[in-house]
Amino acid sequence: MMNVSIPPIRREMAEQARAYIDQLTKPPGSLGRLEDIAAELAGMTGELLPRVTPPGVLVFAADHGVAAEGVSAYPAEVTAQMVSNFANGGAAINVFSRHIGALLQVIDVGVAAPIVDERVIQKKVRPGTNNFAIMEAMTMSEAEQALHVGYEQAVSVIGQGGRTLIVGEMGIGNTTAASALLATLTDEPLERIVGKGSGIREERLAHKRDVIRRALLLHQPDPAKPVEWLAKIGGLEIAAMAGAMLAAAERRIPILLDGFICTVAALVARQFAPNVAEYMIAGHRSQEPGHDIALRLLGKEPLLDLRMRLGEGSGAAVAFPLFVAATAMVNEMATFASAGISTGEKKGEKQA
Amino acid sequence: MMNVSIPPIRREMAEQARAYIDQLTKPPGSLGRLEDIAAELAGMTGELLPRVTPPGVLVFAADHGVAAEGVSAYPAEVTAQMVSNFANGGAAINVFSRHIGALLQVIDVGVAAPIVDERVIQKKVRPGTNNFAIMEAMTMSEAEQALHVGYEQAVSVIGQGGRTLIVGEMGIGNTTAASALLATLTDEPLERIVGKGSGIREERLAHKRDVIRRALLLHQPDPAKPVEWLAKIGGLEIAAMAGAMLAAAERRIPILLDGFICTVAALVARQFAPNVAEYMIAGHRSQEPGHDIALRLLGKEPLLDLRMRLGEGSGAAVAFPLFVAATAMVNEMATFASAGISTGEKKGEKQA
Repeated sequence: MMNVSIPPIRREMAEQARAYIDQLTKPPGSLGRLEDIAAELAGMTGELLPRVTPPGVLVFAADHGVAAEGVSAYPAEVTAQMVSNFANGGAAINVFSRHIGALLQVIDVGVAAPIVDERVIQKKVRPGTNNFAIMEAMTMSEAEQALHVGYEQAVSVIGQGGRTLIVGEMGIGNTTAASALLATLTDEPLERIVGKGSGIREERLAHKRDVIRRALLLHQPDPAKPVEWLAKIGGLEIAAMAGAMLAAAERRIPILLDGFICTVAALVARQFAPNVAEYMIAGHRSQEPGHDIALRLLGKEPLLDLRMRLGEGSGAAVAFPLFVAATAMVNEMATFASAGISTGEKKGEKQA
Repeated sequence: MMNVSIPPIRREMAEQARAYIDQLTKPPGSLGRLEDIAAELAGMTGELLPRVTPPGVLVFAADHGVAAEGVSAYPAEVTAQMVSNFANGGAAINVFSRHIGALLQVIDVGVAAPIVDERVIQKKVRPGTNNFAIMEAMTMSEAEQALHVGYEQAVSVIGQGGRTLIVGEMGIGNTTAASALLATLTDEPLERIVGKGSGIREERLAHKRDVIRRALLLHQPDPAKPVEWLAKIGGLEIAAMAGAMLAAAERRIPILLDGFICTVAALVARQFAPNVAEYMIAGHRSQEPGHDIALRLLGKEPLLDLRMRLGEGSGAAVAFPLFVAATAMVNEMATFASAGISTGEKKGEKQA
């Protein structure tokens, strides 16, 4: 059972950061959301001048038995093939991670095929989940193991110096599992939650919704019992992502969220520790329709809106330079006083 | 007179880039606007695998006689004070430029006070414009000189290796000049065009609009005669920014636009050479209300929307990592064929 103790964020440090940011050589508020990010990061880390580099990027890979129902545009073997691509450095998350100087780790938490590659961290809990359309995806013990894999991996990358956590995933069929989990947290109909994932056709989309509807009827999953909930309709990589987020928040490490799967994993983490969400900033808005619903439940407004829908952590990695800009602003800009600049009518006046 | 010859963009290269991007190891279209950026950059540069680093950031500073009307939240002396801040490396654009590895140049094209600092490029055309509420801002010859300062400075930074052009500005009162220029290009009322700039109060906003209304009645400026138009109600730094953009487009160098003033300068450049706009990508959406109108006239949808409104080129600099991500995607990602990955149902099928 995930037994974590997440400290409250330091609101007074966020306020102190806001007051300091208003002294920097720019009209108050004129750097918009960069100012909000800097203040939020101060509250999370407890530091007025936080450092966010290098980010740790953890990509968890696992297979989904429900892929046998034909819910994805790609065959299940693509999970293992993409893991090789990650190992070889050829996937989007490799490219973006290099350009943000990230510590990137690829973890096999449940790929169906054997992965024999020393560049992939071997933590397979089981070779893919069962097809949750007909039986529980995994046992509760396996769900707990997957949570712990994520937790330990985050502890490891933070130990190596990671100052921001980004979690990504690879798993053919995982938008189906994420949609099923999300459906139990909201009254929104499946028509608004379930999307085309990696790009299925319209007729398959109706089928994907039916598969989820049947699974929910079969299992009656209850998010208030989060381990059982994950075991019934979850995924190994989704559990690992949630575990990683819990470890980061426990250590005051900011979490930069990716898209739909990642945001559902964030909602999973919140079922274990409500205040984990205080350590999260949403990196981007995915094109997957359920993402908006998940973001609303989590209470987050994403930074980027670039019509991306790849996963792997790619949206968060592309958003990461905004963390760099926000922290560079507080760390490096001159103040009006230090630069000897007149402040004009704004002094002491509250601006809209 | 700006006499430039801007080559048409290479549409066939943009198409070739799109076809190549669809072979990369990701569902087609799943990197959203990054794919669009990469294709547009290919069309602009004529290269399938374009390089965009280092960017050249040119910050043009000048004063505005119209500041005497009380249209800004800051006194006019702040222009020169901020130029010192730029020279000392303490302003937002310094900080963001460092983090994107930019070639940053600060150019005095018309600051009222003498600038004696070898770190500021001295190209003063005149010490600030006249107050265009009562007389023409400058002579036509001075407007042409300012255009040429910008043109030559862009030639210089491109000669030093700049592969993307970002232009920024500093000039107390310059949202008033930019709003006046924009008002002559559209039927939108001044109520929708004129904003609070660096942060004036509501009652000053009405005054700012009145000043612009009077100036437009007095001068009857005609954008079809762009040098005269600039001379009547423009600004020295706005003219220089337009000139710099013309030089970049002439050399197939992509232009990443900043906020309101910069986008108005882009519209000025278009009055000299209509196809200059084909070399522009809008970096961000400013909070200044006229920016939306200017973007619509230019036909651009910005990449970021972070409630920024600082100027200096800061929004473009913060958006620049998206150029890096887009070009890294095409330059570094594996293809399905090279990585040996199954393409599933998507092969040869057009996706929404």
